[in-house]
Amino acid sequence: MTPPTRPVSRRGLLTGGALTAGALAGAAAVTAARPDDPKARPADAVPIAEVGTAVEPFHGARQAGVATDPQAHAAFVAFTLNPGTDRAALGRMLRLLSDDAAGLTQGRPALADTEPELGLLPARLTVTFGFGPGLYAAAGLADRRPPSVADLPPFRIDRLQPRWSGGDLLLQICADDPLTVAHAQRVLIKDSRPFATVRWVQQGFRRAAGTEPGRTQRNLFGQLDGTANPKPGGPLETAVWVPDGPAWLRDSTTLVVRRISMNLETWDLLGRADRELAVGRRLDTGAPLTGSAEHDQPDFAATDPGGLTVIPDFSHLSRSHVTDGRMRILRRPYNYDGTPTPEGHADSGLIFTSYQADVTRQFLPIQQRLAERDLLNEWTTPIGSAVFAIPPGCPDGGWVGQQLLG
Amino acid sequence: MTPPTRPVSRRGLLTGGALTAGALAGAAAVTAARPDDPKARPADAVPIAEVGTAVEPFHGARQAGVATDPQAHAAFVAFTLNPGTDRAALGRMLRLLSDDAAGLTQGRPALADTEPELGLLPARLTVTFGFGPGLYAAAGLADRRPPSVADLPPFRIDRLQPRWSGGDLLLQICADDPLTVAHAQRVLIKDSRPFATVRWVQQGFRRAAGTEPGRTQRNLFGQLDGTANPKPGGPLETAVWVPDGPAWLRDSTTLVVRRISMNLETWDLLGRADRELAVGRRLDTGAPLTGSAEHDQPDFAATDPGGLTVIPDFSHLSRSHVTDGRMRILRRPYNYDGTPTPEGHADSGLIFTSYQADVTRQFLPIQQRLAERDLLNEWTTPIGSAVFAIPPGCPDGGWVGQQLLG
Repeated sequence: MTPPTRPVSRRGLLTGGALTAGALAGAAAVTAARPDDPKARPADAVPIAEVGTAVEPFHGARQAGVATDPQAHAAFVAFTLNPGTDRAALGRMLRLLSDDAAGLTQGRPALADTEPELGLLPARLTVTFGFGPGLYAAAGLADRRPPSVADLPPFRIDRLQPRWSGGDLLLQICADDPLTVAHAQRVLIKDSRPFATVRWVQQGFRRAAGTEPGRTQRNLFGQLDGTANPKPGGPLETAVWVPDGPAWLRDSTTLVVRRISMNLETWDLLGRADRELAVGRRLDTGAPLTGSAEHDQPDFAATDPGGLTVIPDFSHLSRSHVTDGRMRILRRPYNYDGTPTPEGHADSGLIFTSYQADVTRQFLPIQQRLAERDLLNEWTTPIGSAVFAIPPGCPDGGWVGQQLLG
Repeated sequence: MTPPTRPVSRRGLLTGGALTAGALAGAAAVTAARPDDPKARPADAVPIAEVGTAVEPFHGARQAGVATDPQAHAAFVAFTLNPGTDRAALGRMLRLLSDDAAGLTQGRPALADTEPELGLLPARLTVTFGFGPGLYAAAGLADRRPPSVADLPPFRIDRLQPRWSGGDLLLQICADDPLTVAHAQRVLIKDSRPFATVRWVQQGFRRAAGTEPGRTQRNLFGQLDGTANPKPGGPLETAVWVPDGPAWLRDSTTLVVRRISMNLETWDLLGRADRELAVGRRLDTGAPLTGSAEHDQPDFAATDPGGLTVIPDFSHLSRSHVTDGRMRILRRPYNYDGTPTPEGHADSGLIFTSYQADVTRQFLPIQQRLAERDLLNEWTTPIGSAVFAIPPGCPDGGWVGQQLLG
């Protein structure tokens, strides 16, 4: 049924001539290899009955939902502040929302919860607050805004839509249970109404809890996404969290949310070998083309018998690679899958999220290299973009934002 | 913070006068009761690592996805057949889709699967085929259409939208993993393209796998939904499956899919006691107002000191109650939660599904009683409706529909 894989020239790839070659190739071969064979995966002793009752802390020096092992479901809710929502009103709003989040994340319904039965299973719920540029302006605190918390410079690949972009306040709601996310989203939006309107909502998913414990997320291209994340502990510590400065900055981070539409139609026309050249990694294991395991170091100098580098310079891996651990970004992406067109074309893509101590120093150089030449740009289009500061966490009895606004 | 619950008169409820009374009541009391306390739930020894690899059978006398313990995620995909998709073309289409489903449900990528890595974790995937009225007509087999597989008669409560209604062919795709559902949806839509266009897609969710094992689904009103389902074994057997007749009817069933918009805004204005009168059950345990546990038999004759029946005649429980087990319907609902309005009003509701041997004999009388007087109609609106035959299953090497079309 499937033609043999037919690699094409890199020139062909770059000029788009490869799009008709090698379609559908390789599926049978991959089936035989079964790289995801369950028997090869480590057993996990956590009983599934604990998925609903598992809890992530809400209070602490840093907000949850960043270094937290990613939950299966997410809703990103961005708000526009109402005229008149000033520093004092923001304080009231954030006290209320922090109180809701402190309860719901621990399996306690919110104070004014009208469906309290839906608030009893936290399923590792986290609610992470993000402050957009407009929040600092509304509070009269523009001088406290981290300079890189601003609209990103335009990239030639961007096709940004206002309906997926910007925002004064973000609530990132994540849990392993979709009903828990829906309920928390509803409660938090309801309590935000006196202060703000909903600007956009993006709902996304990863593998269900326990489906692939400890594995890197796979996006709808089938690609492992997040392999190069800084490792928990020191590397993540350095790359993500602001270590010092005034109280509203220490233990904060920043978040870039980009909605990336993925053209599965044209991607599907590429052969498997061509896709792997575009990514710079094998699709099955996620190993760099010069290695055999996902976390092997790529060898960008290695050449093939024809003298070309094994990992092409235009590959996503080459363009996004960061040598200095302090310059890395923490990706925590979610897939989205909307309603397909009548012709059956998917509305699919990625809610790309990147956390870093400094957007300008860490995210922007990578994004600029990708925008210039990443071959994956042929099949992906950024359609939304927003940047938020993730302020420090708060102690029990406190509220998120108190260091800035209190 | 919360006012005491203030029950209102039934007259007030019926005339809508209760809508402003008792808002937000009862949340604190429910918190204290914690009816869903995890410690009260039975432990479940299934390790979460098995969520991804668990398999439901595809081949058999009956299709999977009906009596199957409901999975966490569902996509209902309805198609309009292209002009020219006749009996022979339908045979080719259903052979292809059956082959895809037979593979994907067992963790084997489809033959022409372009993202084969996404096909390796079935997570209890089922693909259930439904035949709408137009399929029988297109095949020139109108005489084989079960008479009740047709548009439902109009109900005064209906506000049906074409974008959620009708369909010649349905694929009901369910799995415990959302990425598995998204991938299966994509593969099956792609392989349908030569034969049909997508009419509508409805995506829904229940609690994540293992969150509440063995528990009845809770909808976004916080209401337990499906308590009166026929029990597995004899009762379900009799109510759901066609026991005899020609080969294309034996072991078949029928499916009614209704998209029910739920007005959380006005529901939230009701006090807790009023909601329980509308439902006829307690919201925490799901027990009938005359009982103490979810599966207690309701006592419709019991009266309160004032002489009124404890379970009001206008309650959902009274209107939907069926005494004769053979007349029951099997509900297998999924919640949906779309993008809220800028003002923060939710786009939430229920993908109501009902399986029964005969729509006219079982579903319609219940629906007529509900449409007449169910108080829940005040807060719910049917905005989509479709009816399908669920043909018998097929043996290994066969295809769904072969008894009808082969």
